[in-house]
Amino acid sequence: MPDCVTVTDAVSLPTGFTAHVANIGIKDSTTDFLVVASERPAAASAVFTRSRFAGPSVLLSRQHVADGRLQAALVVSKNANVATGAQGAANAAELAAGVGAALGCPPQDVLVTSTGVIGRQYPMERIRAHLATLSAPPYPVTEAVTAATAMMTTDTVAKFAEATVGAARIVGLAKGVGMIEPDMATMIALVFTDAEVAPADLDRSFRSVVERTFNSLSVDTDTSTSDTAAILANGAAGPVDLDAFTAGLDAVCRSLTRQLARDGEGATKLLVVQVDGARDDAQAKRVAKAIVNSPLVKTAVHGADPNWGRVAMAIGKCFDDTDIDQERVVIRFGEQQVYPGDVDEAGLERLSATMAAEEVTITAALAIADGSWTVYGCDLSDQYIRINADYTT
Amino acid sequence: MPDCVTVTDAVSLPTGFTAHVANIGIKDSTTDFLVVASERPAAASAVFTRSRFAGPSVLLSRQHVADGRLQAALVVSKNANVATGAQGAANAAELAAGVGAALGCPPQDVLVTSTGVIGRQYPMERIRAHLATLSAPPYPVTEAVTAATAMMTTDTVAKFAEATVGAARIVGLAKGVGMIEPDMATMIALVFTDAEVAPADLDRSFRSVVERTFNSLSVDTDTSTSDTAAILANGAAGPVDLDAFTAGLDAVCRSLTRQLARDGEGATKLLVVQVDGARDDAQAKRVAKAIVNSPLVKTAVHGADPNWGRVAMAIGKCFDDTDIDQERVVIRFGEQQVYPGDVDEAGLERLSATMAAEEVTITAALAIADGSWTVYGCDLSDQYIRINADYTT
Repeated sequence: MPDCVTVTDAVSLPTGFTAHVANIGIKDSTTDFLVVASERPAAASAVFTRSRFAGPSVLLSRQHVADGRLQAALVVSKNANVATGAQGAANAAELAAGVGAALGCPPQDVLVTSTGVIGRQYPMERIRAHLATLSAPPYPVTEAVTAATAMMTTDTVAKFAEATVGAARIVGLAKGVGMIEPDMATMIALVFTDAEVAPADLDRSFRSVVERTFNSLSVDTDTSTSDTAAILANGAAGPVDLDAFTAGLDAVCRSLTRQLARDGEGATKLLVVQVDGARDDAQAKRVAKAIVNSPLVKTAVHGADPNWGRVAMAIGKCFDDTDIDQERVVIRFGEQQVYPGDVDEAGLERLSATMAAEEVTITAALAIADGSWTVYGCDLSDQYIRINADYTT
Repeated sequence: MPDCVTVTDAVSLPTGFTAHVANIGIKDSTTDFLVVASERPAAASAVFTRSRFAGPSVLLSRQHVADGRLQAALVVSKNANVATGAQGAANAAELAAGVGAALGCPPQDVLVTSTGVIGRQYPMERIRAHLATLSAPPYPVTEAVTAATAMMTTDTVAKFAEATVGAARIVGLAKGVGMIEPDMATMIALVFTDAEVAPADLDRSFRSVVERTFNSLSVDTDTSTSDTAAILANGAAGPVDLDAFTAGLDAVCRSLTRQLARDGEGATKLLVVQVDGARDDAQAKRVAKAIVNSPLVKTAVHGADPNWGRVAMAIGKCFDDTDIDQERVVIRFGEQQVYPGDVDEAGLERLSATMAAEEVTITAALAIADGSWTVYGCDLSDQYIRINADYTT
């Protein structure tokens, strides 16, 4: 599936979408302000973090997408506007109003997202001054890489992907490297398409894809207060086959998920965990998450150490899954079975090579029924510690 | 409470308990074989890991303690005997039989525990040769530090504590530095007392204490396949007041819990998280665990970074606790309130000093009702990664 996705600097936004990118000095001199606008109102769907400390951007945007219609998405990066009280809520509303005024659309048609440090107010004077200069679309930026770059905080690479469905294109942008175990969406992922899709179909398709992609990603078990994944479909390319659309959307979101995992804070490897033979998909996901989130599994992967006992331990942590029988479980690293059975010296060498690769796949077969799930994560390195021990100070 | 506990090399096992300590070459030349024997059958209670990959030692010992009586506890360190199949189960039974034969007690009165690498068979020839030479008690070792040292794997210090209750003493031994988020017990904690306590009272007292101590400890969210906490009361010192006994037991187990957290793999600090004002104790524990287990909170503590936004994030992860209202939550580092409210420059300096201490306390008040809980953990350092990226190879 991922091979029908394009990830090159030549990827441009779909027809009818343009972007405004700027630096307004939120934290430093890199781009930190992104508006992606549609030339016309678009069908829209979005899923958000379930955090009890969800930021004002999430609370506001949840209302704005409720009618299934958006015309623009705004991203402020380097400041999350979270735990900022009534002032933070007023600021988020002012941003939506300002962008809406420039576009000539109601503030309710603007999705507001924000990512960065928690607990600080926006520099509203600078933001107001910038909003006052914001013109009406079309905007000059159409390259996906430029738009995705403006969303970055501690990301080391811009993350975007494109798929084609008939005459339409689906282009996704994402950011996020830490505080990532989305329970509804990754930190911020925005998908734009010129396909014409009815809001109800768009919502159903998007939610099913998000569940298998962004919601199957974990860098560090920490769930952001700002998680948002949204899609805007402006219809400029006309109608498409819905199944083909969902497949293309899945490919784009899966590519973004893999890019997010691979760029996890301090990560040197992509870790893919597949569980099958589970009682149901939910159990498969639970077990896969236990493995991909285990710091002992993650450090073993980092050290290219074929210490499969830690995978057994992680499966064992699913206490309430009393139908898991350690006598029937089979564990594989790559293609090679490591449990049950003895691994000889030659096998150990092959395992070390498997573990040293840039992508490591661990499979657990539970032999209960036919539930299955795949989750995406990364190794845990010294660099994760250094990045996060020194972040705000 | 902890100041009524003694932790010095002078601590000896209670009356009627003696220890046999040896090296039988399980992995290296350090002591790896410990038998603590009572001169008479003792009332006993134990709690074990709920892991679905629980090892043969746990499965066997669960049966042995079912009648509330034990005469000895055996610890094999450096090999967990986990995921070893029918052979591993037979080996555990052979160990119990061998120790029982030396003591002249049924194998069912021997608690078998084992800790170390997963997925390897014991070197049974060496173990058999050693068991054949094992004499009847009393054994030569009575120092707690020597017994606790024989339990160590990657522990950097021996962990033990003593409390006095009337004429009786309570002495606990513990080991464990990683793969520690006990859901029933820490890796291995053995408590011996010469107090006379009826089995039912002992069981009730021990379970209530374990819940607030070992089960409130987390080093890295990974639950061991070998977790065992057990107590043996041989009655040699006669009866005691049950409340005083429980208080003394709590002090010993709390001291061991703090020692375990402080010696967590790579840890440089003890992290204590207190949650109060919760709907009930269970909610307080859930929120406290979310904070103490957050890798972003742990790395901030490691870096002495007063990044309280991460504590807000961690609280926010308790999605299903919909009665948590971010407008009413109060967060403190040490004595200092950090949320809500602005921290000025002087406050930031005080915070940095608080965070740089060897023990950091984080408090969250939820303002819902009066549930409260305290959990114990540690910071997350580069050293944790190094230890665990290179463990078996």
